[in-house]
Amino acid sequence: MSRFLAVDWGTTNRRAYLVEDGAVVATTRDDRGILAVEPGGFDAEVASLRARYSDVPIVLAGMVGSNRGWIDAGYVAAPATIDALAAKAVRPIDGVAIVPGVSRSVAGRGDVMRGEEVQLLGAAAAGMVPPDSLLCQPGTHCKWAWMKDGALADFVTAMTGELFALLKAHALIGQEMTGAVADDTAFGEGVADAGRDDLLGALFGVRAASVLGLRVAGTAASYVSGLLIGTDVRAHVRPGETVYLLADEALGALYARAIGMVGASTQRIDSHAAFVAGVTRIEELLG
Amino acid sequence: MSRFLAVDWGTTNRRAYLVEDGAVVATTRDDRGILAVEPGGFDAEVASLRARYSDVPIVLAGMVGSNRGWIDAGYVAAPATIDALAAKAVRPIDGVAIVPGVSRSVAGRGDVMRGEEVQLLGAAAAGMVPPDSLLCQPGTHCKWAWMKDGALADFVTAMTGELFALLKAHALIGQEMTGAVADDTAFGEGVADAGRDDLLGALFGVRAASVLGLRVAGTAASYVSGLLIGTDVRAHVRPGETVYLLADEALGALYARAIGMVGASTQRIDSHAAFVAGVTRIEELLG
Repeated sequence: MSRFLAVDWGTTNRRAYLVEDGAVVATTRDDRGILAVEPGGFDAEVASLRARYSDVPIVLAGMVGSNRGWIDAGYVAAPATIDALAAKAVRPIDGVAIVPGVSRSVAGRGDVMRGEEVQLLGAAAAGMVPPDSLLCQPGTHCKWAWMKDGALADFVTAMTGELFALLKAHALIGQEMTGAVADDTAFGEGVADAGRDDLLGALFGVRAASVLGLRVAGTAASYVSGLLIGTDVRAHVRPGETVYLLADEALGALYARAIGMVGASTQRIDSHAAFVAGVTRIEELLG
Repeated sequence: MSRFLAVDWGTTNRRAYLVEDGAVVATTRDDRGILAVEPGGFDAEVASLRARYSDVPIVLAGMVGSNRGWIDAGYVAAPATIDALAAKAVRPIDGVAIVPGVSRSVAGRGDVMRGEEVQLLGAAAAGMVPPDSLLCQPGTHCKWAWMKDGALADFVTAMTGELFALLKAHALIGQEMTGAVADDTAFGEGVADAGRDDLLGALFGVRAASVLGLRVAGTAASYVSGLLIGTDVRAHVRPGETVYLLADEALGALYARAIGMVGASTQRIDSHAAFVAGVTRIEELLG
């Protein structure tokens, strides 16, 4: 029987899956992200994880393989295959593998990911998405990935979520950005206004709308979210395309709305299942 | 002899011009912007300014006429003429006039200005710019104004400068944004990259470029400035146009470079002379 522990180890959170013959038999999630682990403390942390299941083999992905994590596992250059991820995995001790990230650097534009690649290549390997497809992982730093023949051909990261948080906390318009963000009328207006291709002007317009009483109170946060997500979507999606969304329910609904408004369609993919599919394939390849 | 004091009274600074028969005979600049004046303290502040010159008549423009200033002088709706500014000036006591701001609200897009309108209409009234022209006042909130028949027909405010400051102070890429901002190679690369119409992706690219060692250290601040100013310019300027720039030397040089890169040309206008021309015309119209 094949049995191993797969860990998606991010900056602030960590999720572990015990996988037996390709099926998840136990899952744990905690806040022991890499920032919660003392420098020099990763050996003990990993040993503790493995000890829960009789020193089971373990495959680690995500920020644990960065220069702020345990061991810098480097990057595989795009176009990247799941075989390349497995081949370049760092194996510091017997029974432990750390998956590298993926980089791209063409025509002066560089980009990096670490952790998302396992979901992306896992979704393709498991047939959850077509071999040639566009995938989107919304978040603080939203990833757009173009798969070709099942490989991660290219990608771009947009600072959509981070910019929203920055504006709300620190901008002059932050004080106007009240109310919940939801897939509502104001959000749709923001997505539509993104079509004016004047983000810097539209953002100041939030302040002006408040001064002039043009906007219903408590709707500006949703409007700004629509403006940013609309800008993100318009930069990366063409009409008629299908976007495979790996997102939680709330953020997924916002991106699905914005993608629909540019004339493209969406399909939701279970990001946990995609991760498990990817890491299971990597574990098989490690031999 | 016509003699009056013109005050450009902003949020943090204040500039006063003693004007005799249309010529400036004395100028003072201090940091007594509206935030430095206690609520209820504007009467005394204005009296003190006038007393320096034997209780000369005074015309106030800028944030002093906002709801955070002395008296809210409201807004004249665009298209706005200099005659309309004079006609709607608020005159709380004999010898004192406060110039209103200008607003626009068409097709759901609102915008406001307060203070800039005197420069813009003054430049047109004095023949410093053609009656039909595009003017730009770069800054924390950059104003783009379209003049028609000498009137302020329409305008838009872009939060270009504010966003640069926010990113530098608070974003993940803020730590990368070192070095001086100048009209250099990195600035030009930023303006060029703005042409990819993917500001959110290009901003994260600053982080990726640092991780991958793709950018010379100490050039990212200039690059991000180019990205933002390039985005601002591309949204508002068409190739072949002439943009009349009312800016200080450093910011003017950056905008001139970016405007040149989109195939448009620039002419520099003295913003102080434009203000004095505008306020002098308003004072004449006050009668």
